[in-house]
Amino acid sequence: MRFTSEQRLDGDVLEREFTLGEVPGILWTPASVPAPLILLGHPGGVRRMYPRLVARAQHSAAEGYATATIELPGGGDRPRLAVVDEARADLRRALAAGEPVTDDIVDRLVLPLVEQAVPEWRATLDALLALPEIGGPVGFAGGVIAIATRLAVVEPRISAAVLFAGSYVPRSMFEEARQVTIPLHVLLQWDDEGNDRQMVLDLFDAFGSKEKSLHANMGGHTGVPQHAGEDGNRFLARHLKQDL
Amino acid sequence: MRFTSEQRLDGDVLEREFTLGEVPGILWTPASVPAPLILLGHPGGVRRMYPRLVARAQHSAAEGYATATIELPGGGDRPRLAVVDEARADLRRALAAGEPVTDDIVDRLVLPLVEQAVPEWRATLDALLALPEIGGPVGFAGGVIAIATRLAVVEPRISAAVLFAGSYVPRSMFEEARQVTIPLHVLLQWDDEGNDRQMVLDLFDAFGSKEKSLHANMGGHTGVPQHAGEDGNRFLARHLKQDL
Repeated sequence: MRFTSEQRLDGDVLEREFTLGEVPGILWTPASVPAPLILLGHPGGVRRMYPRLVARAQHSAAEGYATATIELPGGGDRPRLAVVDEARADLRRALAAGEPVTDDIVDRLVLPLVEQAVPEWRATLDALLALPEIGGPVGFAGGVIAIATRLAVVEPRISAAVLFAGSYVPRSMFEEARQVTIPLHVLLQWDDEGNDRQMVLDLFDAFGSKEKSLHANMGGHTGVPQHAGEDGNRFLARHLKQDL
Repeated sequence: MRFTSEQRLDGDVLEREFTLGEVPGILWTPASVPAPLILLGHPGGVRRMYPRLVARAQHSAAEGYATATIELPGGGDRPRLAVVDEARADLRRALAAGEPVTDDIVDRLVLPLVEQAVPEWRATLDALLALPEIGGPVGFAGGVIAIATRLAVVEPRISAAVLFAGSYVPRSMFEEARQVTIPLHVLLQWDDEGNDRQMVLDLFDAFGSKEKSLHANMGGHTGVPQHAGEDGNRFLARHLKQDL
């Protein structure tokens, strides 16, 4: 992990960009360290997502958490993934034509991301947990929900997750969802047209976690109400503090 | 409205039993009055439900709210409703036999309650709002969800509602649900076997409210987690305080 830039934000938050191999990322740490860590998931394009990510980071820092994110495979300035781009074009064509989104499209759109992103998140976690500034339990918040699902299964260091259900999940991963046992807080935008609501409900049902809750709100894909975000924060605080 | 008993509870909460015509009820008021009011819905049997109702009342009083509940038609010591009792027996038979719960059973089970309970709630509201201890906006919290749905449509004095989706709703009421416009916070116990989950999801979808959110949790019919109750309280506080 190599830090490439550093700046102080309001509230005495230290923002550092880093690269880990080919993967760029950002780490935010609060004034008081070592701090427990929340990994911030997103749909790809850290620069585009930056305003929302940094707002979340500053809020978390005020509550004593470090946060970190990495660029998705194919996202931002990283090399495009041809198979995913092609699947995304097929998805848009299907939606525009009012045709069903086939399992084949979803598999090609999501599985390559999951395969590549999960080891990258795990390597990032290795590197972050080796820093003296990071200590204590680890949470996950955001999307891509299929990536977060796989991560929750294979990565025992993640104690609880807020999942943003704003993207497709391959049917082949539903069996995997049954193996998730950590507490989950799932956010669903009920009227998100770019989503498959029934798929999210089926996925929520499939999760093996004894403690799981689904929070559906209005406002479209990007319109998660502030109070819903706050509920998610309280969920993480409840679970990460228990583990401290 | 005739008060029939009075006692002080912890936290300087005044509990008064009353009757309004044939309908018995309980009013809880906080130390500081006039107070805004939350109507507490329940599945019938105030005495059986008392521990949960009084806990809710004391919590609400600590936040400055008065609360009130009335016995359901056919509930507690009120005269039984033969048609509802018969439908309940049919429902139990159907569930025990693994047969579908028909629309006919649900209509006979729920519609008579809705028809009778809604005017009773409205008359109670008239009487409560005439008391000097009650002032400001009115919320509703609890079930029966079909009663609460009708009440939300016909009673303009109710500003926001926490609905507990723990009972059946006649299909014929879904069109009515589209006419609900107040903010709604719907609690669904995901693994509640005595409930029809898909029906709740369809009903939630039907509600016409621009602000509505669905909160699904594990733990069975009576196992609403504490944090879910707290989220509901925050929802009411947000909406009732706005209206003050």
